[in-house]
Amino acid sequence: MRTKISELKENTETTISGLVEKVRNTKYMVFVIVQDTTGHIQVSIDKSKQEELANEVEGITVGSFVSFIGEMVLSEYVKDGGCEFLPSSFQLLSLADVSPIENNANVDTKMDYRWLDLRNKKNILIFQIQSYLVQVMREFLYQNNFTEIHTPKLIATASESGSEVFEVKYFDRTAYLAQSPQFYKQMAMASGFDRIFEVAPAFRAENSNTNRHTTEFTSFDLEFSYIESYKDVMYMEQEMLKYALAKIKEKYGEIILKEFGREVIVPVGDFPVIKLQDLYQELHERYGYEIPDADVGDLNAETESLASRYAMEVYNSEFLFVTDYSATKRAFYHMRDEFGIPQGYDLIWRGTEITTGAQREHRYELLKHQAHEKGLGEDVKFYLEFFKYGCPPHGGFAIGVDRLTMLLLDLPHLREAMFLFRSPNRLNP
Amino acid sequence: MRTKISELKENTETTISGLVEKVRNTKYMVFVIVQDTTGHIQVSIDKSKQEELANEVEGITVGSFVSFIGEMVLSEYVKDGGCEFLPSSFQLLSLADVSPIENNANVDTKMDYRWLDLRNKKNILIFQIQSYLVQVMREFLYQNNFTEIHTPKLIATASESGSEVFEVKYFDRTAYLAQSPQFYKQMAMASGFDRIFEVAPAFRAENSNTNRHTTEFTSFDLEFSYIESYKDVMYMEQEMLKYALAKIKEKYGEIILKEFGREVIVPVGDFPVIKLQDLYQELHERYGYEIPDADVGDLNAETESLASRYAMEVYNSEFLFVTDYSATKRAFYHMRDEFGIPQGYDLIWRGTEITTGAQREHRYELLKHQAHEKGLGEDVKFYLEFFKYGCPPHGGFAIGVDRLTMLLLDLPHLREAMFLFRSPNRLNP
Repeated sequence: MRTKISELKENTETTISGLVEKVRNTKYMVFVIVQDTTGHIQVSIDKSKQEELANEVEGITVGSFVSFIGEMVLSEYVKDGGCEFLPSSFQLLSLADVSPIENNANVDTKMDYRWLDLRNKKNILIFQIQSYLVQVMREFLYQNNFTEIHTPKLIATASESGSEVFEVKYFDRTAYLAQSPQFYKQMAMASGFDRIFEVAPAFRAENSNTNRHTTEFTSFDLEFSYIESYKDVMYMEQEMLKYALAKIKEKYGEIILKEFGREVIVPVGDFPVIKLQDLYQELHERYGYEIPDADVGDLNAETESLASRYAMEVYNSEFLFVTDYSATKRAFYHMRDEFGIPQGYDLIWRGTEITTGAQREHRYELLKHQAHEKGLGEDVKFYLEFFKYGCPPHGGFAIGVDRLTMLLLDLPHLREAMFLFRSPNRLNP
Repeated sequence: MRTKISELKENTETTISGLVEKVRNTKYMVFVIVQDTTGHIQVSIDKSKQEELANEVEGITVGSFVSFIGEMVLSEYVKDGGCEFLPSSFQLLSLADVSPIENNANVDTKMDYRWLDLRNKKNILIFQIQSYLVQVMREFLYQNNFTEIHTPKLIATASESGSEVFEVKYFDRTAYLAQSPQFYKQMAMASGFDRIFEVAPAFRAENSNTNRHTTEFTSFDLEFSYIESYKDVMYMEQEMLKYALAKIKEKYGEIILKEFGREVIVPVGDFPVIKLQDLYQELHERYGYEIPDADVGDLNAETESLASRYAMEVYNSEFLFVTDYSATKRAFYHMRDEFGIPQGYDLIWRGTEITTGAQREHRYELLKHQAHEKGLGEDVKFYLEFFKYGCPPHGGFAIGVDRLTMLLLDLPHLREAMFLFRSPNRLNP
């Protein structure tokens, strides 16, 4: 039986398997540092006592995969961990060629050899934490009677905003890749599904290369019915995030602080809420910031960053809900009140917008009107049909799993939070 | 606070919300059958006592969404459920147009109006069960230290088998949609991820219209390292399915029997295993079946069906592992033994193949050789690179979530198990 390195017990014979991190060949000893997903350990071979074993091990290269049978013993001579592994036998599982990337390789080379870059223990940790993050967010939703659905990514029309949609050759016609499951989440509401969520890829044909953009990301989407207002949506998201952060802190809080230098803060009570106009005024009064004309009615990157500063200074909160955007800057399917104000919000965390949420317009005539107002016609016709035969009031939101991971671990670029990054210039590996 | 219909307590004022299933207007009474995701109940209004309420309710159409405040009371007059809901107030949430589909509508019409077809309580139940099935399969994997990853669906080459891959216009070049996460699951092994899984869409540009085919489905994929042989993969799958079926039986066993007429059978012990040649011989001796020359070395639909019959008759098992396929019928990345026999298996359940699993060839030179033997060159070059710098022995399998749901509930067609079906002729809604 194989034992994970972090679970080794003193003086107990077992097998360890992993990746060779380092080989050090001295006059009397061969040392091999072996790494698995739980940690690493030094395997020590005394040449005079285990000549054959030492000979076998001498030739292995960094990056090779190996198994050793033996025992872990405590040792005051080993600085890293205070223990070592004394092997009785060795198996070479896979001999590695010399790695083409070095620690100081540039970003593009690292991305070209992403599978080697991922071997870095910190990188594996990112995806263990991301997996757990999604696990506990789902857990919260199961507890709240949400059903997971799987909506198609191949769609018939370039619906939400034509220019940023990928075209697919679909037999003798053209299909498109879904930018989000928005329309189908809402379809589930019209079907009476009550509460649903989906975790799936979303595609954006945006030709921009920033640290926040990608052409394909993992979207965590939910939608639920019988709400009174968008405040129910805000509350659901707030509670989900509080639940998830508490779980993350419990399991990974210490290691996140140690490896990424970031404390996991579990919010207490309600997140602060501010109207966009009031936020503009606060940022002006406090920081002398004026929103550029082109962005009025919306947030931009600088506003998001300052809004976070404001939330921290005034409310000691990492989170801030911003409401009352301009209808011209919001999707046509957001419900509006009698004054035309969209009944939705953005949520800002650590200087970045992580969510747009809203109550949706579920009344067919109003929805049709709002779609036409935005110049949308044929492409959304199939979607408008969903509301003709009855649909309960509902709302929902979406969070990008990669962006959330990036902010949780204070990573400098979205690509660090993605198993394989995709951008206009990057389709490989 | 809203109460789910199945959770109503006698003589306690509360709100119910749901879909109008039926309205019956008699001389003295108006009856409205309201349905939510947990059940349905008759709302009864006495015209003489609640004239205003009766007038409001009279006009509502089937398919509308409503809320009632009131109390549930037991009643011997109500045949269906033995209880009714006596409302004190009513809110029309959404008035429905008359539904364009009838109960006896043909399949295409039902698919055109899938969101109305899904309102059928049995259909909603299908997706509640599917959601739970995926939940408990994931639960098993978390318990076994698997990490969930999200691999890109946009890929640079038409890798596995060019002809069945969708092309995407990707800025100024062509990308393709992943047919499976196979190559990237294996990449994770080379990165030292140890054990990973993914639940995500997979795309097949197959121009065939059968009850088992679709152009987009939800694939449940896993891969893990440090295996001794493909038998470790079979064991993992067997234990996962036993775990999932036990959980499903516990929560949904009775209702599946009642609504779908199928008993959920939790397997005991190991699934039977048979070599393909022995299976051919058994089917010949028992049922006089001869495999057509074109299919020798593989299974076809009829063989799968008879194999299930054999497993049931001889082993009283719904499951059967079939091993020792012909290398010509298997993917190049399956490991082969010294006699050239692929180290993998198919799993048959209820007359249908649900999985192909295998130990993978992790040795670069052998893998390259096997790829070239199948005529694969440039398209798999990026993939072969994953094995050059070390990769532990590993294996894995994939299950189609939709197909599994179809078989679990004895549905006649894959489209019944899919929220929205996709085929060469079907991209709508």
